[in-house]
Amino acid sequence: MVLSEFYNVENKKIAVLGGGSMATALVKVLSENNETVFWWMRNQEVIEHIQKYGHNPRYLSNAELNTENIHISQNIDEICELADIIILVIPSAFLRDAMEKITVDISEKIIFSSIKGIVPGVNMIVGEYLNAVLNIPLDNIGVIAGPCHAEEVALERLSYLTLASIDMEHAYVLGSHLSCRYMRIQISDDIYGTEYAAVLKNIYSIAAGICHGLGYGDNFQAVLVSNALREMKRFIKAVHPIKRDIAGSAYMGDLLVTAYSQFSRNRTLGTMVGKGYSVQAAMLEMRMVAEGYYATELIRNIKKAYDVKMPIANAVYKILYEGKPAAKVIEKLSRKFT
Amino acid sequence: MVLSEFYNVENKKIAVLGGGSMATALVKVLSENNETVFWWMRNQEVIEHIQKYGHNPRYLSNAELNTENIHISQNIDEICELADIIILVIPSAFLRDAMEKITVDISEKIIFSSIKGIVPGVNMIVGEYLNAVLNIPLDNIGVIAGPCHAEEVALERLSYLTLASIDMEHAYVLGSHLSCRYMRIQISDDIYGTEYAAVLKNIYSIAAGICHGLGYGDNFQAVLVSNALREMKRFIKAVHPIKRDIAGSAYMGDLLVTAYSQFSRNRTLGTMVGKGYSVQAAMLEMRMVAEGYYATELIRNIKKAYDVKMPIANAVYKILYEGKPAAKVIEKLSRKFT
Repeated sequence: MVLSEFYNVENKKIAVLGGGSMATALVKVLSENNETVFWWMRNQEVIEHIQKYGHNPRYLSNAELNTENIHISQNIDEICELADIIILVIPSAFLRDAMEKITVDISEKIIFSSIKGIVPGVNMIVGEYLNAVLNIPLDNIGVIAGPCHAEEVALERLSYLTLASIDMEHAYVLGSHLSCRYMRIQISDDIYGTEYAAVLKNIYSIAAGICHGLGYGDNFQAVLVSNALREMKRFIKAVHPIKRDIAGSAYMGDLLVTAYSQFSRNRTLGTMVGKGYSVQAAMLEMRMVAEGYYATELIRNIKKAYDVKMPIANAVYKILYEGKPAAKVIEKLSRKFT
Repeated sequence: MVLSEFYNVENKKIAVLGGGSMATALVKVLSENNETVFWWMRNQEVIEHIQKYGHNPRYLSNAELNTENIHISQNIDEICELADIIILVIPSAFLRDAMEKITVDISEKIIFSSIKGIVPGVNMIVGEYLNAVLNIPLDNIGVIAGPCHAEEVALERLSYLTLASIDMEHAYVLGSHLSCRYMRIQISDDIYGTEYAAVLKNIYSIAAGICHGLGYGDNFQAVLVSNALREMKRFIKAVHPIKRDIAGSAYMGDLLVTAYSQFSRNRTLGTMVGKGYSVQAAMLEMRMVAEGYYATELIRNIKKAYDVKMPIANAVYKILYEGKPAAKVIEKLSRKFT
């Protein structure tokens, strides 16, 4: 369903903050929809390359970008000021740094986060950070959830995004800009549930990797993932008890695309740990950060306030943070599965 | 949990009917548990090979069988008479033929079916056929459900079976015989739900194959499978409305292991059809029957009596039975996903 066919939305100006894969994929879609997209990234060299050659040399370099419709700049204030809707697609480790650079007032802007992680230092999910630290009104905050590998958007393979916001009109408006031939949009009002699901799935993806690394097979993975979905349901229900169908695309779909993907950083981290690497060595070797690593600690802290059983997340914590032997921890975990 | 630690079960005699992969896997587990297993299969040559070399030359030939504990025979009456519990692991296409060979009275035996298909001619799931046609009391009927590729049992990779029976003691008793180092057992009373789930997952696996064959990617598959789980939930709830958690291993786990498996016959059939083979050509090429093909027609017939939306099963029916072009049908289906 092309939402704009049904919703006569004002043509809003949209900014994308970030220069990675998902940012590039969103800019591709928005710029093809024949609107000017406002794009901020840090690296001037990359900006010049994109302006000259029409593709991002570092991420999704096979995706052709319609540069005529892209206004790209290193000046975050300029980009934010021009936009009505700001999409955050910055790795969570760099989010605070970027947000602190903004000196213009963004409290009236609509801000959607496509970040699936924890804001370091404050230890909050992004929606919470925007509201509690940056004083963005809850009504102006939204979440972009998957299941959506950016690589497949670049290949124009049909994908689905879930847009969640408490004031659902914001989600409809952004949806009408993002919907295209190869991108369908779902709308939700569950900003906490979709964001927690996106954070939790990274932990379960690490668990799937650990089991794979230890030599467990497909039969076991299927039981692990079905237990993970039930654990996700229990946690989200405890933290934010509204009616939701956990088998929905933004929850189960997102879990599946990550847990079954060979390309997930989180799964790769888990696989290396399962094969015997220390956590530190695995992270060094990967030369990137797996969001699920930090999520594991945050979720453990949040969980303390609730009476919710999370044997899988606990097992990942024991392996990553307490140095317990993966084989033993998973063997014990396997006895709790139903 | 080794069930026998908790349930002081009488040592029942167990028979396995069938000579394929799953039958071989079950005999492997039972014979390792140090009991005499009674095993029926048709082919005398295969029987002699097993007796001489300790492995099945045709299926799971890498699995070593403890022949000291196996009583194997071509005489189905002899095997049935010796057993208290009979496990059916015959391809559904040959089930009636085998059952009609039995002349001894089996109405007092406990009969578990591990068949994930439709009994041709009578067009019933196996449990129904045993009850309605063979007059086995419902209380004596059980279902063995996955998620469980027999190949991984042969490799002794930790797997889970769900045993369902209305009189749950039967499931406990069989469970105590099947539980071992690499096989954990779940117990359920949902004989209809687990059997319908096992039948439906083959249809969804065909759908996953069709989409893969058409070039859809992982993002789409995740949405397809999460929609399939909700469709499965609606159907089973309509046909047999008892309380169940569809994210359980026997439902969602079984769906995952089949839909994400490269080895599923059903998925392979779908992939070939998606790539442009006619259904007939695909089946000829595969030289075997995909259970999901027959299930697609049966479920369509059963569905008529209920008010339940099944867009995925309908799409598969249109492609397999009405010769509608797969690309168009799936494109239309993709617009119904949420």
